[in-house]
Amino acid sequence: MDLPVTSDLMPGQLLARGVCRHLAGHGFAVIEEFVPDRGLRVDVMALGPKGELWVVECKSSRADYMSDGKWQGYLDWCDRYFWAVDQDFPTELLPEGTGLIIADGYDAEILRMGPEDKLAAARRNKLIRKFAVHAARRLHGLRDPGAGLEHLG
Amino acid sequence: MDLPVTSDLMPGQLLARGVCRHLAGHGFAVIEEFVPDRGLRVDVMALGPKGELWVVECKSSRADYMSDGKWQGYLDWCDRYFWAVDQDFPTELLPEGTGLIIADGYDAEILRMGPEDKLAAARRNKLIRKFAVHAARRLHGLRDPGAGLEHLG
Repeated sequence: MDLPVTSDLMPGQLLARGVCRHLAGHGFAVIEEFVPDRGLRVDVMALGPKGELWVVECKSSRADYMSDGKWQGYLDWCDRYFWAVDQDFPTELLPEGTGLIIADGYDAEILRMGPEDKLAAARRNKLIRKFAVHAARRLHGLRDPGAGLEHLG
Repeated sequence: MDLPVTSDLMPGQLLARGVCRHLAGHGFAVIEEFVPDRGLRVDVMALGPKGELWVVECKSSRADYMSDGKWQGYLDWCDRYFWAVDQDFPTELLPEGTGLIIADGYDAEILRMGPEDKLAAARRNKLIRKFAVHAARRLHGLRDPGAGLEHLG
């Protein structure tokens, strides 16, 4: 069944939706388009039951992947890093030492875990606080459009 | 201007809306109906720019206040505790040593700061993580109603 909202999403956002559903089913809380640090914006940031932080970058095509010059900068902001692509993506392009998720708009599956490179405690706490602020502000903006939160980003 | 959504909110929720707007304007991220621990549910949990956590209980009437037997249990889960009431509330009923906010559905004003009783670092970090999970799950549920998150609470 095609949901009405599907047509409004870009291909990468559809992958992100499937990734988020899958990770939520495994106890993760997820947000999209999270800014861990100035100039960086990750497609999906997931916060696990033990406080683990995973970054998932969603690539809808070869061209989408080839034009991303920033992904290595994301490694410093998570415990594990993953690519999410659809089943037609040429996965041999993807670098070793990264996780791999195959996704569509409805679900996803982790094919290869990203290797763990644990965040230092101080950075983890700072990131979780930023995650909390981001999620709460967006939620607040949706619940109360009259609150005038637009400038807070 | 009366917003259409207003009529759907209970009096206490209207106060919460005004409180949230005010606190957001001062750099706080806010969530409503947060569960800091089993059996406890606070009306507003606010996370400040320095990681401070404030609890605000909204009381729409004397009866609403008198029937609350749990509020002292909230003191252990925040750095500062406040009551939010409307301008007609008999504030002399409220206990000393708590903060006071006068609110309506559109805004609020802090009349008296709640005294600070700082959380231990471990509890603060745990609470901020719970805040992050709560906000992200609710946001996810609103963004993607098809995700089937209802059972996660």
